Amino acid sequence: MIDNRNLTMLTDFYEITMANGYLESGMAEDIAYFDMFFREIPENGGFAILGGIDEVISYLENLKFTDEDITYLRNKNMFSEAFLDYLKNFKFSCDVWAVPEGTAVFPGEPIITVRGPVVQAQFVETMILLLVNHQSLIATKANRIVRAAKGRPVMEFGSRRAQGPSAAILGAKAAYIGGCAGTACTIADRDIGVAALGTMAHSWVQMFPSEYEAFKKYCEIYPDNSTLLVDTYNVLKSGVPNAIKVFKELKPKSMGIRIDSGDISYLTKKARKMLDDAGLQDCKIVVSNSLDEYLIQDILLEGACIDSFGVGERLITAKEQPVFGGVYKLAAVEKDGKMIPKIKVSENVEKITIPGFKKLYRLYDKDTNRAIADLITLVGEPRPEGDGYEIFDPRNVWKRKKISNFVAKDLRVQLFDKGELVYERPSVEEIKQHCAEQVDALWDEMLRFENPQTYYVDLSHDLWELKKNMIEETAAMNEI
Amino acid sequence: MIDNRNLTMLTDFYEITMANGYLESGMAEDIAYFDMFFREIPENGGFAILGGIDEVISYLENLKFTDEDITYLRNKNMFSEAFLDYLKNFKFSCDVWAVPEGTAVFPGEPIITVRGPVVQAQFVETMILLLVNHQSLIATKANRIVRAAKGRPVMEFGSRRAQGPSAAILGAKAAYIGGCAGTACTIADRDIGVAALGTMAHSWVQMFPSEYEAFKKYCEIYPDNSTLLVDTYNVLKSGVPNAIKVFKELKPKSMGIRIDSGDISYLTKKARKMLDDAGLQDCKIVVSNSLDEYLIQDILLEGACIDSFGVGERLITAKEQPVFGGVYKLAAVEKDGKMIPKIKVSENVEKITIPGFKKLYRLYDKDTNRAIADLITLVGEPRPEGDGYEIFDPRNVWKRKKISNFVAKDLRVQLFDKGELVYERPSVEEIKQHCAEQVDALWDEMLRFENPQTYYVDLSHDLWELKKNMIEETAAMNEI
Repeated sequence: MIDNRNLTMLTDFYEITMANGYLESGMAEDIAYFDMFFREIPENGGFAILGGIDEVISYLENLKFTDEDITYLRNKNMFSEAFLDYLKNFKFSCDVWAVPEGTAVFPGEPIITVRGPVVQAQFVETMILLLVNHQSLIATKANRIVRAAKGRPVMEFGSRRAQGPSAAILGAKAAYIGGCAGTACTIADRDIGVAALGTMAHSWVQMFPSEYEAFKKYCEIYPDNSTLLVDTYNVLKSGVPNAIKVFKELKPKSMGIRIDSGDISYLTKKARKMLDDAGLQDCKIVVSNSLDEYLIQDILLEGACIDSFGVGERLITAKEQPVFGGVYKLAAVEKDGKMIPKIKVSENVEKITIPGFKKLYRLYDKDTNRAIADLITLVGEPRPEGDGYEIFDPRNVWKRKKISNFVAKDLRVQLFDKGELVYERPSVEEIKQHCAEQVDALWDEMLRFENPQTYYVDLSHDLWELKKNMIEETAAMNEI
Repeated sequence: MIDNRNLTMLTDFYEITMANGYLESGMAEDIAYFDMFFREIPENGGFAILGGIDEVISYLENLKFTDEDITYLRNKNMFSEAFLDYLKNFKFSCDVWAVPEGTAVFPGEPIITVRGPVVQAQFVETMILLLVNHQSLIATKANRIVRAAKGRPVMEFGSRRAQGPSAAILGAKAAYIGGCAGTACTIADRDIGVAALGTMAHSWVQMFPSEYEAFKKYCEIYPDNSTLLVDTYNVLKSGVPNAIKVFKELKPKSMGIRIDSGDISYLTKKARKMLDDAGLQDCKIVVSNSLDEYLIQDILLEGACIDSFGVGERLITAKEQPVFGGVYKLAAVEKDGKMIPKIKVSENVEKITIPGFKKLYRLYDKDTNRAIADLITLVGEPRPEGDGYEIFDPRNVWKRKKISNFVAKDLRVQLFDKGELVYERPSVEEIKQHCAEQVDALWDEMLRFENPQTYYVDLSHDLWELKKNMIEETAAMNEI
């Protein structure tokens, strides 16, 4: 676990007032089902990459209320001693299902479902959302940037602009899952195994009497990784010529130059020619100045000569759209052993929730292994199969489509069974690999940054009927 | 200290390669001066609020390399044993000066200066930037939102959308400093003393057979803080009437309703009338739906009836511009006891640094106590004083102004003297109070969100001459 602080109190205060309220109302053991889902793909992209599941597991596995927590709560003079006793003896006993980390996910899908005593299932809302929202945001952004780089390695360089220490560390992890080759964040290397790299800042060059001496000393000390920052004074008149001179004198095993300012497209083309003319075809060019997927795409189209990218603030904060809007909503309760679906109706149609305890399938074309659609059904419905299976868009029900020659795979796995971890947690490398395979299974038309093809996320007929009827009932009740 | 993890390895990898490089080059004890400053106020605002200094102090005070850190570094097979020994016996011995947390700050000012052995002064770059950038970002955003609310309390509600656990906790702190009245983030209450509040989610209402029963039960349990969420079904047809019914039956000590969706302006006006007509003038109206300073300003202009605001994702991520671009640059070195100023010249004029070891003053009008300008001088220059003192804009040197009847106050304090903490750390309450006073000392024209008056940050004549000469020398050297 990367963050072993006791973060039980990192929760919205209302989770605690409600928990105490349920206990006081004799409802503590009532069974509730909560779904975590999101409504919009950041930057109008074709899909999101799910992150943060591994940290959710660590959180749930270690969830307990310390004496410090309980003393703090007692001093609020709002909570009953029965409730504080409950917390003292707290044992997480929910069932949890989730989509595996690294999977491509879509709006409206129940990414996580928590089933259990309402006190518990409600309480974990804040941290589930915080962890999954943050890392899905960064993994999704990283995947976009990596796609723009067209096979060139992308390094995550943003720690100094991250929104706090955890954002730097977990952001480096999420960026790696999304496809980055490594990070500048050393602790992410030590604790998560995301390879860290880094060479010099401008200050190194400034500390020496000349740029040439600064470069020479660096290559002497690090002959295996001699990437020289060439824009302290002037890239083409000073930096590159000094780098060439040093490389020819010392012949380090690994040569590179890094450009961190100016017109990247122009400078890299000129620098490439100077390096090639000097016989340094092996010397790599790294660039790192306020990059994101749009700029990378543009400068590569212009023919910029770049071997790898360092991406900072625009990745680590997902600057263009820094919020992943996951929510956590009540989907059902059990009363006297009977399942009662719940819905939240809103004036905003997109905000109406999908009621009931559900299953989530991804349907793959048998020939191409490409994903055709995702299908949400009620638990208990038969697995979708057969030729001519009809799917339809729940937002536009006239959009119907018959599909054949497909196989339906469960998209979710069970993480916890009555509070016991029953899931074999993949390594970060495995999650990264899973992500790459997932993206490979999508149609190319979904990979565009602008106006990508919208993927089908459909409801079964039974689920659609249930939702429609519940909306009508609620509307009638309130004479809306 | 809020985050007591060992975060020494939360550093860009190049800080370590450079540190080892300096040691290997016999330069470890060379004295260097680094300045932390920023270049642009977020959202083109009139000023920024400085945050994160208290966490920088904790970081520097506790900076050490554990056996785990050293084992990790040894396994990289890049660093000398002499260097690893140095880290083992590491003792922070730098001098550090900084502007006190909560102060209004401006582009180009040396907010922090670190003077000491280059190995150390360089190493601390990443964490200083990370902590100050993050909290300044959030404190600045919070101050904007609080100003828009015109005296109404603003609560920070964004934990679930924060970029990782630290962003939620330290963000709640920074928002409080910037002027928020409290937070929903419970751990920020327990560990930092930022008052936490919260009542219910939609799920509470949905768990009961009816909205009325849900409200009634809540008021019975929490008569001292009965704020009811009225938009689960329909605000005006169901939520407000049920709240009124319950309030009249139970007469709780503190009554409120919260609206979290729909047209806030319309709904609050209608709800206010319904509450007033029912004799519930004491009932407060809280709103909380994707708010920021712009929306708050607009709905208040429309006459929305609101007593307090809950602000989530747009505050905790500073969504409109989620990066505070602080940098950390070499300003000078000492060689044989002599100070040698350093400059980083860039093709982008705004990116050229200010050389030398500097002092920072804020000049106040003696009559109004308003801030007139900030002045950066070299250490050793006389304190600015007297009538007809000339200041000029370093970007537009023809803009000159003679000022009189002013007093120059040192804007910075010394935090560390040769590694020893010599600063009495203010409490979070004191920082918040200091921030409010600082903003009060600014001219009203600087408080606008759009096109605020640009504050003067001027250089002394000597400093300007030094900078100009160094730019010319560098340009000549590179024939730019």
